[in-house]
Amino acid sequence: MTTQSDLLPPGSVIGILGGGQLGRMLSLAAARLGLRTHIYNPQADCPAGDVTNRITVGDYEDTDRLIEFANQCDAVTYEFENVPTITAKTVSTITPLRPNARALDVAQDRLTEKTFLRDEVGVGVAGFEAVNNEFDLKRALKRMGYPGVLKTRRFGYDGKGQLILRSDGDIAGAWDRLGGQPLILEAFIPFKREVSVIAARGVDGTCRAFPLTENIHRNHILHQSLAPAENDTGQAQDMAFKILTALNYVGVMGTEFFELEDGTLLVNEIAPRVHNSGHWTQDAGCVDQFEQHIRAVAGWPLGDPTPLYTVEMTNLIGKDVETWPDIMTGSDSHLHLYGKGETRPGRKMGHVNKVMKF
Amino acid sequence: MTTQSDLLPPGSVIGILGGGQLGRMLSLAAARLGLRTHIYNPQADCPAGDVTNRITVGDYEDTDRLIEFANQCDAVTYEFENVPTITAKTVSTITPLRPNARALDVAQDRLTEKTFLRDEVGVGVAGFEAVNNEFDLKRALKRMGYPGVLKTRRFGYDGKGQLILRSDGDIAGAWDRLGGQPLILEAFIPFKREVSVIAARGVDGTCRAFPLTENIHRNHILHQSLAPAENDTGQAQDMAFKILTALNYVGVMGTEFFELEDGTLLVNEIAPRVHNSGHWTQDAGCVDQFEQHIRAVAGWPLGDPTPLYTVEMTNLIGKDVETWPDIMTGSDSHLHLYGKGETRPGRKMGHVNKVMKF
Repeated sequence: MTTQSDLLPPGSVIGILGGGQLGRMLSLAAARLGLRTHIYNPQADCPAGDVTNRITVGDYEDTDRLIEFANQCDAVTYEFENVPTITAKTVSTITPLRPNARALDVAQDRLTEKTFLRDEVGVGVAGFEAVNNEFDLKRALKRMGYPGVLKTRRFGYDGKGQLILRSDGDIAGAWDRLGGQPLILEAFIPFKREVSVIAARGVDGTCRAFPLTENIHRNHILHQSLAPAENDTGQAQDMAFKILTALNYVGVMGTEFFELEDGTLLVNEIAPRVHNSGHWTQDAGCVDQFEQHIRAVAGWPLGDPTPLYTVEMTNLIGKDVETWPDIMTGSDSHLHLYGKGETRPGRKMGHVNKVMKF
Repeated sequence: MTTQSDLLPPGSVIGILGGGQLGRMLSLAAARLGLRTHIYNPQADCPAGDVTNRITVGDYEDTDRLIEFANQCDAVTYEFENVPTITAKTVSTITPLRPNARALDVAQDRLTEKTFLRDEVGVGVAGFEAVNNEFDLKRALKRMGYPGVLKTRRFGYDGKGQLILRSDGDIAGAWDRLGGQPLILEAFIPFKREVSVIAARGVDGTCRAFPLTENIHRNHILHQSLAPAENDTGQAQDMAFKILTALNYVGVMGTEFFELEDGTLLVNEIAPRVHNSGHWTQDAGCVDQFEQHIRAVAGWPLGDPTPLYTVEMTNLIGKDVETWPDIMTGSDSHLHLYGKGETRPGRKMGHVNKVMKF
């Protein structure tokens, strides 16, 4: 049960580990609700640092700085999953860390994540095996067959740290590129479409989810999301709720799925944070994922995630951002820019939500 | 004609004179568009100071501080109409001030304002006469009849600095309370309803307006706004556009009207800034007044002000704000809090937008 004392009152300070665009949009959502944010980031100049007057500049493993930071916060959250364990532990001893450290442990390591999902939660995932040496790799490929996807267990994102192996001839090259660190071999999934669900769990255990989102990637980076997606059976939300509950999670989590031809959903990965495929919620006429996360972290009741529109979100990657003057002339398009100074190839500079009334 | 060079690019700095809730909501809107804001305010601790990392603390008549501030801004705007003339002049010599100093001159003095509206713009206003001494007052009352409304020409707001006179017996008392400063006597208007229009004018002279808003006051403070109001003939928008054009205005302006039984509209007053009766636009599914103002100030094209919902905005005044936990449980209600520490009677602490689909 939620008690009144679980609610952080307006004026409370939510600490955010990480000062990127997600921290920025979380800060903006918190401000609307009369909550303050305090950013912790290794550099002072960062997208989130622009929208709050509270920032602590420090390395993530600088425990003295972290203690100083956490002591100024009523709760702490994070905008990226690679928060070091020492960071999470340090903060947790002082103030509530939401989501908790376990969510980080699970999400940081593909082997831990897949094992947790399959064995503890009981949701479908692609077949996988741990690979610690070239012998493991060959044995796993023999068992699982081609094609297989070899990935680093940690720090992979946007297609970095992964390779597809299509025959024995690919093994040596793949090992040269990725070997020498803990790896995982996953079965290649011939999916019909990629979908995701943005779900939240409150301090009182209530779970709520936005409708299914269909995602299109380009060069392994999210290009577009369309929501609500067609043929939303509610299955993805149910799976997300099981994961949230198993983790005793508080906050918003993004869950990416492969949908097979027959409609079966396999969890690809979870992100213990607000998620790029949830940016469409900002202009959907309901609570958005950023406010939903802040509500959860502050112990507030979750908002109603029922959208009033269909929204097509398009990421502005690198030079895409130069189209902003054209976007501004569209009456159905909402521009969101992240305040990043330098445009670099592959860098997420902003996004645009195109709204279509049902 | 707008040229590309009139557009301030993302990353540009918009200065805002004033650090209250309007400056705060302007800052949040600017941040979504990738623009930075720099607040100028006499105190460091202020609602807008919480949502930006750029603040200059100084008195409005401290020209050295103002010059330092203006030199760091690509354009400057303001969130209140009582910006001193010296402040506006100082800033204008360095960087574009939008809206311009003339809008301030007109809005700061009820006599100048009414004269401008009647004689220069040609829109309807209540009858009025300047009152500089008790003799003027008696003569004006004889000409205009009872009831009359005696107001200070400057610095009146929320019903402060005004009195209704119903008979000769009220004269001496009214003079005791308001005399000794420039006054204006206005005819008392038996209005059917109070309405307002939030209109904007871009750098290129384009005007756009949100639909008519109906306003309900309590104790002379705005209590509720409902928009779109019924029976919107477009007349109010036309009058607002005439005013904007006559002032060569850039930005959002609020115009309050009295609507008489026969539908005639008389302009009550103009506010050369975003306006409390436009807060409903934040949750109407279109551009909101804050983004519209920022677009204008940055030289960007104005957004489409066509709402997708009916919205009822209710101000949270003083202790009303204590109802926030109940508001958070409503799926159709959007809470906006201003981050003010101390709750005082009559103080605007936040507002709630209740959304109703058409």
